[in-house]
Formats: sequence, C-alpha cells, structure tokens
Amino acid sequence: MNAHISTPLKIAATALFLAAPLPAAAETTEERLKRGDAVIRSLNKGAPQPALERLRREFPFLAEATEGYALGDVWSRTALDSRTRQLAAVTAFAALGELPIMKVHAGYALNIGVSEEQLKEAIYLVTVTSGFPRALAASQALSELFAERRSQQ
Amino acid sequence: MNAHISTPLKIAATALFLAAPLPAAAETTEERLKRGDAVIRSLNKGAPQPALERLRREFPFLAEATEGYALGDVWSRTALDSRTRQLAAVTAFAALGELPIMKVHAGYALNIGVSEEQLKEAIYLVTVTSGFPRALAASQALSELFAERRSQQ
Amino acid sequence: MNAHISTPLKIAATALFLAAPLPAAAETTEERLKRGDAVIRSLNKGAPQPALERLRREFPFLAEATEGYALGDVWSRTALDSRTRQLAAVTAFAALGELPIMKVHAGYALNIGVSEEQLKEAIYLVTVTSGFPRALAASQALSELFAERRSQQ
Amino acid sequence: MNAHISTPLKIAATALFLAAPLPAAAETTEERLKRGDAVIRSLNKGAPQPALERLRREFPFLAEATEGYALGDVWSRTALDSRTRQLAAVTAFAALGELPIMKVHAGYALNIGVSEEQLKEAIYLVTVTSGFPRALAASQALSELFAERRSQQ
Amino acid sequence: MNAHISTPLKIAATALFLAAPLPAAAETTEERLKRGDAVIRSLNKGAPQPALERLRREFPFLAEATEGYALGDVWSRTALDSRTRQLAAVTAFAALGELPIMKVHAGYALNIGVSEEQLKEAIYLVTVTSGFPRALAASQALSELFAERRSQQ
Amino acid sequence: MNAHISTPLKIAATALFLAAPLPAAAETTEERLKRGDAVIRSLNKGAPQPALERLRREFPFLAEATEGYALGDVWSRTALDSRTRQLAAVTAFAALGELPIMKVHAGYALNIGVSEEQLKEAIYLVTVTSGFPRALAASQALSELFAERRSQQ
Repeated sequence: MNAHISTPLKIAATALFLAAPLPAAAETTEERLKRGDAVIRSLNKGAPQPALERLRREFPFLAEATEGYALGDVWSRTALDSRTRQLAAVTAFAALGELPIMKVHAGYALNIGVSEEQLKEAIYLVTVTSGFPRALAASQALSELFAERRSQQ
Repeated sequence: MNAHISTPLKIAATALFLAAPLPAAAETTEERLKRGDAVIRSLNKGAPQPALERLRREFPFLAEATEGYALGDVWSRTALDSRTRQLAAVTAFAALGELPIMKVHAGYALNIGVSEEQLKEAIYLVTVTSGFPRALAASQALSELFAERRSQQ
Repeated sequence: MNAHISTPLKIAATALFLAAPLPAAAETTEERLKRGDAVIRSLNKGAPQPALERLRREFPFLAEATEGYALGDVWSRTALDSRTRQLAAVTAFAALGELPIMKVHAGYALNIGVSEEQLKEAIYLVTVTSGFPRALAASQALSELFAERRSQQ
Repeated sequence: MNAHISTPLKIAATALFLAAPLPAAAETTEERLKRGDAVIRSLNKGAPQPALERLRREFPFLAEATEGYALGDVWSRTALDSRTRQLAAVTAFAALGELPIMKVHAGYALNIGVSEEQLKEAIYLVTVTSGFPRALAASQALSELFAERRSQQ
Repeated sequence: MNAHISTPLKIAATALFLAAPLPAAAETTEERLKRGDAVIRSLNKGAPQPALERLRREFPFLAEATEGYALGDVWSRTALDSRTRQLAAVTAFAALGELPIMKVHAGYALNIGVSEEQLKEAIYLVTVTSGFPRALAASQALSELFAERRSQQ
Repeated sequence: MNAHISTPLKIAATALFLAAPLPAAAETTEERLKRGDAVIRSLNKGAPQPALERLRREFPFLAEATEGYALGDVWSRTALDSRTRQLAAVTAFAALGELPIMKVHAGYALNIGVSEEQLKEAIYLVTVTSGFPRALAASQALSELFAERRSQQ
C-alpha cells in the first residue's frame, strides 16, 4: 500500500507497533487494556472511543473484552500493517452487513491515511463476496461518513 | 505491505494493471472476459482456473459473469494493490464462512507473495468480526491449503 | 409460467389445491398432517420423503412441525402456484447457502415441471442477492442433482 | 437456574405448563391458538402482545402461525423451563442480529424473573458465537430495554 | 401465474424481453447499460430509479455494476418471466433480511401485476426458510410499502 | 433446571466456579489460560480438547485466544450456571448453522448433565429463530453425536 499519511501519525503508529509484544504469559490484564487503549488512540487521532467509554458503565465485561481482547490482543498485532488491517476489517464488516461498526472502522482508516477511493474499492469487492444489497447499504453508510467528515472541516 | 514477490510475477501484475482501464462504455464483453482471464492468470501462476472451465459447460452465464464481472470488472481495478485486495477478500470470505472460495483466494494470495503469517492474521481478525466458530473453521481450511502446498513442492 | 407438466401430476396437484382450505379453527392436527403428507406426495412423484420418515424416530416434534406446519400450513397454500413457490424457495435456499434443502426442493421443482434452465436462472439471481460464493456453491449442488437424475433414467 | 420470581407469575407459569400436552392428533387449531395466547400472557404479565394484534389485520396467516405454531406448539413445550428457554432464545436472537425480537423476548425474560445480569451474560456469550459487532449491537438494544423499564416504574 | 397486468406495460415488457439477447461477446458496455436502464423502466412505470441516479455521483463503479451487470446482464434474462423473477427475488431478499432492497423490488412486483396477496405469500414462505424474526420484519416493510402506495393514489 | 449430574463432576464444577474471579487487572495471561484449561476439563470429563491442542502448533494466537478469552474470560463467568450456558450456546450455534462447534458444545452439555431431550428442545426453538433448514441440519448433527455416544458405551 502506498497511501500517504502524515508524519506524526506515522511515527505514533510505528512507536506503538514496535512496542507491541505478542501477548506473553506473564503479561497482566492491565497491560493488555493499556495496549488496547493505545490502539484506539492510534486510530482515533489520539482520543479514546466515546462509545467504549459509555459501554463501561452498563456492560463492563463487554467493554473490557473489546479493549483487552479485540483491541489489545488482536488489533495490536503487527503481521499486517494497520492500513491493510483497516481495509480488511472494513471489507469484512461491509460483507457481513455490520454497518455501524464498519463506519467506525472506515473513519479510523481515513484517520491513518487510507483514501476515500480505497474504501470505495472495499465496497466494490462486496458486490462479489456478498451481493448487491450489502454493497449498496455499505455505500450509503460510507457516504454518510464522508459527509460528516466534510461538515467537520 | 512489504511482502517480497518474485520479479516475473511482479512484472506480469504491473503490466496487467497498467493496461487495465476503467470499464469504458465502448468496451466489448469480449474485452472484459479477456481482462478477467488475465486477472486469473496473474493470480494463478499463469494458468486458468480449472473450476471456472468446468462451470462453462453447465452454467455458461455464471462462468461468464464470474470472468467478465467479478474478475474482469471488479478484480482488475487498481485503487487497491492486489495483495491488499486478496487479504481483504480472504478476510471477508472467512468472516462469511465461505470456505471453498476462501481457500482458492488464499492460494492466489500466496502465489502473489502474501505470506502464510499474513493469512493467519486475517483469520485472527475474524474472531472479532464474526466470532470463534468461523475463525476456527477458516483456520482448518487454511491449514489444508498450507499442507497441500507443502506436499506439492 | 408456461412449463409443461405431465397430465396425471397436474390433476393430482389441482385436486390437492382445490381441496386445501385455509387452516380453520376447527381443523385438527391430524388433518394438518394429512395435508402436509399430500403436499409432499404431490411434489415427490406420489412417494413420502424418506428423510422425514427417518426424522420421526429421533426428533418427533421436528418431523411433525415439518409436516404439519411447513408443509401442511405453509406449502399447501394456494395464492402462489406450486411451480412459482418452488422457484422462489429454491432461490431463497440458495441465497441463504442452505444447500441440502435447496437440492431437495430443486428436485421437487423438476418433478412438477420446472425446467433445468429455470432452476439455473434462480442461481444466476443469487449472484445479485448474495454474491458469487453462494451462487457458485449452489450451482455445484444443482449440478449434482442433474447428474443424479440422469443416472436414474 | 436460581432466579427469584414472584409467586403469582410462578403459579401462572406452572399451571400453564402442567396443562400443556404435546400437540395431539385430535387437537384443533383453535386449541393451539388458545395455548399460544396463554404462553404470551404468561410471558407478558397477563396481557396479549400488541404487535401480534396489529399483525392479524394485514398478515392473518403470519399472525396465526406465530400464535399457533411458534408460541402454541414450540414455546409451550415443557422439557426446558421457561427462564432457560428465554435465555437460550435471547442468546440466539442476539447471535443472529435479530434485535427487535431479541428486545421483546428479553423483556419477557425479565417479566418471568430472569435478572438483568443474566441477560448481559447472554450478550457476552455472543462475542464468542458471532463476534463483537453483534454483541455490541445487542448490548445497545438491551440497554434501551433496561432504560424503558426504569422509566415505567 | 395468472396475475392481470395492464396492457401497455405488458407490451413494454414483451418488447424488452424479445429484444434482450444473451450477452454476446461483441456487445459493448454501453449496450449493457442501456439494457439495464430499460429493465428498470419496465419495472418502474417507465421512470429511472432515483437511488441509482444518486449513486452515480459518489460510487460510479457501483452504479454502473448495478445497471450493467445486475440489471443489464442478470435481470434482463428471459428464462423466468418477470413476475416469477420478482417473486423469487422478494422471497430471497426477505429471507436474507435485506429489507430496503426487498421493498424496492416488491414495489416493482406490484408495478408489473403481482398482487399484494402473492407478496404476502412470499413472506409466509420465509417463516420456513429463515424463521419468524425475518418474516415478521419483512411483513412490516411490506406493510409500509402498501401504505405508501395507498397514500399516493 | 433440574438435570441430574454425577457428583464428582458437580464438585469439580463447583470448585472451578467458586475459584473463578472476575478478570482482574492484575491477573496474568498465564492465569487466564489456566482458567480456560480448567473450564475445558470441567466440560470434557477432565480431559483437554484435542482440537485445541492441534491448533496450538499452526495457529498459536487462535489457540491462545480460544483458551484465554473464549474459555478463560467468557465461559468461566458465573452469572449463568454451566448447564444453562451450554443450552444457550447450543441454541445459538444451531441458529447460526455452526454445526461442528455445536456438536462439541452439545457433547459438553451431555457431560455435565443436560439431557438429550433438552438438547432436542434447543433444536426445536431453532425452527422459530432461524427456520427449518437450520433446525433440520442441527438435528442431523445432534443425531450423529447421540450415535457416537452410544457406540462408545
């Protein structure tokens, strides 16, 4: 992938992923949660995820599982670079029809330098993997995301 | 992505994708089919897909749609490089539980220089996108593919 | 639909559907089961479904639900003619990736005069509704059915 | 399961389930519908389901199938106690992403003495069976239900 | 199928389908797009699809794939008559839970002479193919469509 | 739930669940893995899961995620008793069509005292949640499990 990303984000991402060890037996859950928090911040312009913060109050185990397992254990791994991972995840979420989370991860992808054109390609693949209704629904969610970004600038 | 691929395949792929225009209004279906055939060959070590050839006899429209649309129109596009596309497609097929086609596309991915480690990462993502049964089933299909490749060497 | 069906089957089907009342409040479950059995026989060349007979021994409620509800209540309804119903059901089963039952219902469709070409069309629709992996898998199941039919002649 | 339920509901449920025979051949559809109505009332604090009542006008067969088959035949069975059934059903609806009906059945579960904590556990299982997007979406639907209940008190 | 359709539409449809050749190798993409446009107009009372027109601006490839492949190549085929195709497609979309597109295609079905009763039957089949939550959700979408049609008269 | 389970297993299960704390921040991954191993053994007659052992060699992260997260974090939780959890999981796996893992968890359910009748009920629920094809396929997988158990005695 040749997308251009801003240098500070590139450095942050590099630092994060160089620092990310494979989950070791001696690692504590606190360390896993911290790594999950660092992953979110590397994808979300340094900020935590508001939805995750709300989740903590009512579904504490789900919030911890998302932060410790999904983000801290899986999303922190380094065999895929983070733009490839975001594109693969966006394709999978769109293919499954999981649109709210697709929109969140497409936003993360934009934050780390994936282009709008590349996200559209992921949707075009979905016509092949899952048919036209899912691709059309995903295009609408992506369109909303693009509009929100433009209105924030 | 930094995977190393053999030079002849790299040249073939480059030639293909430089030559691949956006579907133009004046383009004939014959040209789309030819482009689909070139995509397959660029992913399949220069050979056609045997399953596609069998399909032609009994389901000619489906064979033509696969070659002309899925491969010729979608898979020939150039906004994603072909290794990123294969990784995104493998992730989506695994997330959907579409294992026979996942195995075919994981094999294509290996052919163009994606590593076994990167394919395993795609499966690890699936625990998050679709849960553990789909990830476990996909790991088994991938394991069969790796074993077949080793027995062919 | 203009498919040609043999006269005896046509009469059997007509008799069945003329006789099929909407489920009435006074109707007994025995009557519903009988109607389900008549539906199966009208689709299966006068014979019962062997898989349903096996089911009775170990999963009696599921066998009764299939016969009384799925066949006796739903499949006996008359607002869709039975060839349209079989084509719609085959399309839905293929779209969902439910292939063993798709094969059974595609066989019933052939029995009542739906052509192989029409069944192939249902599979072609599936590329649009659900993507290429499901359509390709369904084409293989249909191909097996066609081969079994030819070997029985 | 050790959940505490109020005595009147417990008696109602016991009476219902002691009275529920396996669907017998001589049973009429009217009797099946009546049993379905009793199941709904046992889960819905003695009241009928408003959505089912609306359905009767425009989709009479679907209303009757829901009441006669889904509730009268399946949900009235006694090999699972009704709290275990509601928890299994809520888990399955959440795992499938069928959220409006999950919310209805989670409300029934609360009505018969399943605790909020137990419903949250069902959602936590869904991270394993179906991945994080479905679990997160289900947690949001459950959160809405809990809020509605609190605002009604 | 015996549904009554207005004569002008019948003529338009006949003209379209007589004119629709199998995709030939020499055919241009422009011709495929034109045929897709004719399919839409034959289903949509002579008008283009507004959603498709909006799609062109932001997702041009997806708009072209929908028009050229889904409509021009698949939906223009003639082995199924168009009312049977619409009923099969509505059943499949409902079975998959793809409701916005189900509503669009149910509207097309009404436009070419499928009755409300026949569309309801498709939903009743879905209780068997995919269970009650999907059938109930589809009945609600269909109910909205019927209400919109009545309010437009 | 009133199922009868053998006393030694009951003690093992009780010991396990009394010992199972909520994942604490200071807990190490080694402790989580140990707890996952104890969960498997409590469900599998004291033995480890052979499939999990095979997975370790080729997909070490997936094996660790299954043991540390799915079993150690989720399956060790105590707000649902383990028979209710197994019934809910079997229902969800059957509803999703994830049959190999359904069979494994149905076997665990039998090991801890869930009856064959209760497992059949879970399958009957699936006709409502997901339709008849999934229920029929799950009944076949369950039938195989029951036969395997009988042949081992």
